Amino acid sequence: VRLLQRFARGELHLTRIEAFSDGVFAIVVTLLVLELKVPALADHRSVALLAAALTEQLPKFLSWLLSFIIVCKFWLNHHQLLSQARSANYALVWLNSLFLLGQAFIPFPTALLGEYPANPLAVSLFGLVMALNTILFISLQAYLTTHLLRAQAQAPSPRQIRQGFVGPLSYLTGAAAAWMYPPLGFLLYLVTPLFYIVPPMPEPRIE
Amino acid sequence: VRLLQRFARGELHLTRIEAFSDGVFAIVVTLLVLELKVPALADHRSVALLAAALTEQLPKFLSWLLSFIIVCKFWLNHHQLLSQARSANYALVWLNSLFLLGQAFIPFPTALLGEYPANPLAVSLFGLVMALNTILFISLQAYLTTHLLRAQAQAPSPRQIRQGFVGPLSYLTGAAAAWMYPPLGFLLYLVTPLFYIVPPMPEPRIE
Amino acid sequence: VRLLQRFARGELHLTRIEAFSDGVFAIVVTLLVLELKVPALADHRSVALLAAALTEQLPKFLSWLLSFIIVCKFWLNHHQLLSQARSANYALVWLNSLFLLGQAFIPFPTALLGEYPANPLAVSLFGLVMALNTILFISLQAYLTTHLLRAQAQAPSPRQIRQGFVGPLSYLTGAAAAWMYPPLGFLLYLVTPLFYIVPPMPEPRIE
Amino acid sequence: VRLLQRFARGELHLTRIEAFSDGVFAIVVTLLVLELKVPALADHRSVALLAAALTEQLPKFLSWLLSFIIVCKFWLNHHQLLSQARSANYALVWLNSLFLLGQAFIPFPTALLGEYPANPLAVSLFGLVMALNTILFISLQAYLTTHLLRAQAQAPSPRQIRQGFVGPLSYLTGAAAAWMYPPLGFLLYLVTPLFYIVPPMPEPRIE
Repeated sequence: VRLLQRFARGELHLTRIEAFSDGVFAIVVTLLVLELKVPALADHRSVALLAAALTEQLPKFLSWLLSFIIVCKFWLNHHQLLSQARSANYALVWLNSLFLLGQAFIPFPTALLGEYPANPLAVSLFGLVMALNTILFISLQAYLTTHLLRAQAQAPSPRQIRQGFVGPLSYLTGAAAAWMYPPLGFLLYLVTPLFYIVPPMPEPRIE
Repeated sequence: VRLLQRFARGELHLTRIEAFSDGVFAIVVTLLVLELKVPALADHRSVALLAAALTEQLPKFLSWLLSFIIVCKFWLNHHQLLSQARSANYALVWLNSLFLLGQAFIPFPTALLGEYPANPLAVSLFGLVMALNTILFISLQAYLTTHLLRAQAQAPSPRQIRQGFVGPLSYLTGAAAAWMYPPLGFLLYLVTPLFYIVPPMPEPRIE
Repeated sequence: VRLLQRFARGELHLTRIEAFSDGVFAIVVTLLVLELKVPALADHRSVALLAAALTEQLPKFLSWLLSFIIVCKFWLNHHQLLSQARSANYALVWLNSLFLLGQAFIPFPTALLGEYPANPLAVSLFGLVMALNTILFISLQAYLTTHLLRAQAQAPSPRQIRQGFVGPLSYLTGAAAAWMYPPLGFLLYLVTPLFYIVPPMPEPRIE
Repeated sequence: VRLLQRFARGELHLTRIEAFSDGVFAIVVTLLVLELKVPALADHRSVALLAAALTEQLPKFLSWLLSFIIVCKFWLNHHQLLSQARSANYALVWLNSLFLLGQAFIPFPTALLGEYPANPLAVSLFGLVMALNTILFISLQAYLTTHLLRAQAQAPSPRQIRQGFVGPLSYLTGAAAAWMYPPLGFLLYLVTPLFYIVPPMPEPRIE
């Protein structure tokens, strides 16, 4: 307990935490493109060969697109969450670092999914990593809103908290579905962001 | 309609949107250099072999140069556009994310163009991606100037809006020309930035 | 001596030093993931082959995790240290650049450790590089706290300075242990951060 | 002339120019490490094989170190120069973009130098690129100090301007020497930064 109390100390600058996090987010989304490789063609001028090679890379394009949108959504959530903090302490910095660790890992399962879209393990790993990332975000959110919320900021309502678990559940469903039929898992991942990129409904005010 | 209205909500910080975007721009322009590979030489000390290998990479140097200048121009336009916003909402963030998605994709068609400068598909894809990027920017601009313009800022004049379409048209012309003669497409891409790096004429003021 | 005095001159902006440093930290932690390679599978759909290939990469995952946490800790220390400076001069900039040089080098020994976890040289090099990085940080800290401390800031106590040497000693012990039994060195590296991610005890105040 | 006048227009934010530039600098110095490759060893546990492979990479380590220090020096100069500007216009942004183009190119000649340290062309190209970068910086400096200097800022003295040309001359001498004896060129590059990392003497004040 005494050990845990020490983490609640420290007065750290939110601006540098945001700058470091923004850097990680920006690099993750941009590094994803390195997975798209220029194909080797037997005949450099052949349109047919290049078209075939690019079509074959379709799963890579889709997994790139998917991860790009997911990381942008995480960035947006992170941005909103940190704007509600009044200050930072050690616990927040380490929860944030763990969250960034999850974000920085994303290029790897993305590359696996793009390379082996018909492999149940590759498809389900993607979902597991995304579910884990969502849980890391929820932990960060839970800590910040219970300990470091600004006076003017509003804690999330029980309904909003429940909605936060739709993401991990959806990813886990996709990860499970991949073991029956891999493309179904992939499809579920593609559909998930469509739900959560829509901004939340404002809470009904009781007057 | 109700769904779309939700996107118009939210009060987000422009500074973090700029920081994230600047990060993506900076990484895109710098990652481009990874396409320039150190050639493998049979004789490590041979000047002739190295000179020949580097000359062979000329299309890669040109496509690197081209994309670097294009991304710098997008950064400059983005910089000017966002300085005219009074605030940000969800719609702006997502239009901005889509625009950054297009920017982050640029290294791939750049690498294709550098590797297969005589392949009509590779050359025309570069132009299509650049045209798409310009259109994504125009969408962001249209939304921002109609919904989030600062009181002091001036909306673009019809003439400026028309000029904004010179870019995509020029890229599409290059993409079409590539099917007749690939080097012509490449040449058109190299000429296009020369037009638009010149700053716009100030609007004549009616007094 | 006159030469050294010149380094103590100059009035440089701390914000740009922090921005540059944050960029380097963010890129280092994110580049680490590039070491995790998608394995080549004879049968694309085989779960067993992919599971075996990923298990074989376990040392790479561990060394990635280890370096990520270590760099985050360096970032945190750097963040706290620079917040105590009243201004920057040439000496600080160059000590900071040397420190960033050490940070930017980290992906290389991390990759070596992940690739050759049973090679004593690879394992001990990792420890040596980390010890060197800690010493570079201590130099930066020593200069800043003796020459550029803000009026309100508190210089580290002798106890805190002594604790700062626990890190390099622990890494050097791991580097030495690797020559007897490489996994022991790896284990010591994994244990080291557990000590220093705990925030320091507040100094007892004499009243 | 009218065309050139247009570039002198525009009121752009220095903070975003600095953020974009800092991003490019940070990525360039960090990407350099990707040139250091983990060697392939026939026997994974062999200390002798790994030691031999790392020793063979010595030119890569030296060229990495060299470019890191050179880019840090460019960052420092850029930092000081931009802090003297009162505002930015199109001309400054494009001169800055050209300068960043030169910086972003640095990883390529660095890799060439590291791979072929005994090839006169590889060694001299490194010096030519560095000389070009210095000239791009001098152009940026010349424009800024003649057109956009802040009221309080001091234009560089003729002596300081002359000193600015020591860098390119030294690099060009190294590039020329490489044609006689490549290691001599490499040595000159290693010595050059030793001169210019020393901060400039303050100008004697006439009282």
